[in-house]
Amino acid sequence: MYEELKKTVCQSNIELQKQNLIIYSWGNVSGIDRRAGVVAIKPSGVSYDDLTPEMIVLLDLDGNIVEGTLKPSSDTPTHLELYRNFETIGGICHTHSICATAWAQACIEIPCFGTTHADYFYGPVPVTDIMKKDEIENDYELNTGKAIVRRFAGIDPMQIPAVLVANHGPFSWGRSAESAVEAMVVLEEIATMALSTIMISQQQGQIGKTLLDKHYLRKHGRNAYYGQK
Amino acid sequence: MYEELKKTVCQSNIELQKQNLIIYSWGNVSGIDRRAGVVAIKPSGVSYDDLTPEMIVLLDLDGNIVEGTLKPSSDTPTHLELYRNFETIGGICHTHSICATAWAQACIEIPCFGTTHADYFYGPVPVTDIMKKDEIENDYELNTGKAIVRRFAGIDPMQIPAVLVANHGPFSWGRSAESAVEAMVVLEEIATMALSTIMISQQQGQIGKTLLDKHYLRKHGRNAYYGQK
Amino acid sequence: MYEELKKTVCQSNIELQKQNLIIYSWGNVSGIDRRAGVVAIKPSGVSYDDLTPEMIVLLDLDGNIVEGTLKPSSDTPTHLELYRNFETIGGICHTHSICATAWAQACIEIPCFGTTHADYFYGPVPVTDIMKKDEIENDYELNTGKAIVRRFAGIDPMQIPAVLVANHGPFSWGRSAESAVEAMVVLEEIATMALSTIMISQQQGQIGKTLLDKHYLRKHGRNAYYGQK
Amino acid sequence: MYEELKKTVCQSNIELQKQNLIIYSWGNVSGIDRRAGVVAIKPSGVSYDDLTPEMIVLLDLDGNIVEGTLKPSSDTPTHLELYRNFETIGGICHTHSICATAWAQACIEIPCFGTTHADYFYGPVPVTDIMKKDEIENDYELNTGKAIVRRFAGIDPMQIPAVLVANHGPFSWGRSAESAVEAMVVLEEIATMALSTIMISQQQGQIGKTLLDKHYLRKHGRNAYYGQK
Repeated sequence: MYEELKKTVCQSNIELQKQNLIIYSWGNVSGIDRRAGVVAIKPSGVSYDDLTPEMIVLLDLDGNIVEGTLKPSSDTPTHLELYRNFETIGGICHTHSICATAWAQACIEIPCFGTTHADYFYGPVPVTDIMKKDEIENDYELNTGKAIVRRFAGIDPMQIPAVLVANHGPFSWGRSAESAVEAMVVLEEIATMALSTIMISQQQGQIGKTLLDKHYLRKHGRNAYYGQK
Repeated sequence: MYEELKKTVCQSNIELQKQNLIIYSWGNVSGIDRRAGVVAIKPSGVSYDDLTPEMIVLLDLDGNIVEGTLKPSSDTPTHLELYRNFETIGGICHTHSICATAWAQACIEIPCFGTTHADYFYGPVPVTDIMKKDEIENDYELNTGKAIVRRFAGIDPMQIPAVLVANHGPFSWGRSAESAVEAMVVLEEIATMALSTIMISQQQGQIGKTLLDKHYLRKHGRNAYYGQK
Repeated sequence: MYEELKKTVCQSNIELQKQNLIIYSWGNVSGIDRRAGVVAIKPSGVSYDDLTPEMIVLLDLDGNIVEGTLKPSSDTPTHLELYRNFETIGGICHTHSICATAWAQACIEIPCFGTTHADYFYGPVPVTDIMKKDEIENDYELNTGKAIVRRFAGIDPMQIPAVLVANHGPFSWGRSAESAVEAMVVLEEIATMALSTIMISQQQGQIGKTLLDKHYLRKHGRNAYYGQK
Repeated sequence: MYEELKKTVCQSNIELQKQNLIIYSWGNVSGIDRRAGVVAIKPSGVSYDDLTPEMIVLLDLDGNIVEGTLKPSSDTPTHLELYRNFETIGGICHTHSICATAWAQACIEIPCFGTTHADYFYGPVPVTDIMKKDEIENDYELNTGKAIVRRFAGIDPMQIPAVLVANHGPFSWGRSAESAVEAMVVLEEIATMALSTIMISQQQGQIGKTLLDKHYLRKHGRNAYYGQK
């Protein structure tokens, strides 16, 4: 059971390495079977070279182990909090990819400087508040999830499928584990472009609402006309 | 029919991936058979890993499908407008390559800082005007083409084979699909060099007209003496 | 004898090349057998392509050759000084990796801007004092080691497993040759992130003590809960 | 005859591509047989993928073709001027590698910020004067060589084996074609480090004379003790 989910989550984790988004055992990807309420996630501290579908850990949404002999990622409570609150997402990804992490370390949201950004993110990529002493010392990973959820009050997580956790790094998500990884790849790309953009033009403003709408909506939603569907 | 054109356009699209100019299905290359008035272009949203010559879409210059079962690139109206107005070009390329896109996002033309630039572009790489609300909301891709054509009033597109669309990214062109891709590779290289140059010397001026003439004209035109011809 | 040590040190040196941390014969890795008091180190000026375990030089802690026909790395006296003073370390690595070297050249410590840094280094990565004329002219490599040891007065080298030698470049260390190389890979990664961070936010401050503790201590020490142990 | 020279020069040209210093047919390497007074150089505009030893062109020091059916590199007069004036050099290399070219475009010499630089270059890497109108319009490539030679008045070219031609890019040289390429690889590396260094510390000063002497002279000259010789 859940063989397909474990295989997908395993391959999505390995994809992080192929896309040069992680080194060593950094980062993790999970996926959820919404009907069963079962989350599949990378085991903690395991090298991507050694990862097999059998090693993927299954948990319920309360964090109880359903299957697996290894410890799940230490970031599991963050993933579960996101699944509990963002009901439309099916996969989550976390990395320390260089440019997205630099924006997170600077505690500055990534402005929407162009259509590359607008094709995937319907506005700036937000940064969470800096976590308080108590939030860090107790249930840190759960509180990381809560900080993300708080930051997304009034934002549809499917329209902005990533966040920068202040002083830390990016999380991304999507309909599936694969699309969470795709959002992370794109996030690193636009983070790099945005850094280069401000080096060329320090006070660069964001693109207008009309261009943002045009590009986001030609790829997403009812009137999308990009691709073969 | 048009087998050679479809094969060339397919290979030129795949070349974008090999040259690390695109990720996923971003970007597109087209080519034209001027005698037949037939344009070959990448289908929309198809991965470069899956692309075959059979999938390339053929259209006439008015945008009517001549051959192909897939939807052409959503940027097709931009390509067609350029083919209708730049009569000497035989291929067009569009990407979101990182440094050229950063200059486009900053809405700043790429100054001619050196001979590497002058070997391929006979002056700065221009940036279009920011598009107006109405131009974006109606016939956006056609209007993108018109903005480029407007910007090239008085410029020979064969002497400046690329443009930055403001807030968006680069288009390049050439005698063929292959040379359009070559112009894009070089554009990304000089965009990267130009960014590094202004980081070293913030108020750097452009090279003089004599050096620009020397380098451009030793490679292009009647008195060229570079290469084996 | 010492076959395992020589093999490990050889492979760790070759790993520097695979990780793109060195070019040509730059850099070196050593390891120590603490019970025997024997250090294994790369021979001087040998290309990584040619390196075999048989070429690794063995010395005692006073620098006397125990085994080997080649000259040891010219940086050997630096390594020996570190082994004599940092009694818990089992391997040392030196490179001229680009971003870590840039911080060393700027004579500025790498601030702890985020959790990626805090996962491996329990505070900023220190920079040594600029060496004096006499220290450079006589026993330069030994004095380099002494400058590092001096800078680590009051710092546990296992908690900050790397240093920037002013005007020169990084040294890193760990329980073994392999972990010294891992520390170097991570150092280059956080040096790159830190550079990008200050380009986004010039006056960026370091992360708070609570977050530093949380991340360092969830991976290291008695209460660590990262990984499978 | 000259088979070995042609083979070496061919391989050194191909090495430029492997080292990611050039794209397309950019750049060129030459070598000289000093006893015969014969220079071997890359043919103009030929792709590195197609290059074979048979295609290498042989000339005497006055530019007369000794052997070969292809046109020599358009930069040949620059190479010949350097061979005529720098009598100790045996090979020359020219590229448009990104960071070295950025410094050349900025018309700023590369300061000696650290030991990586000092290991290969006994001081800053100089930049030529900007060439005058007449120098560009007549015998441009010869005058490029003359501008380099002028800039090296009082400098031993074997101690500073590279130059930045203002608004253009780097030339490097050495005892052989291979060592000219090595100097170019190192130049690009230190140009990148120097750019990163000034981004961290804008007013960074150069290293002191004692450290420069120490590093340069431990690798070069009579008292060198680096390597196995």
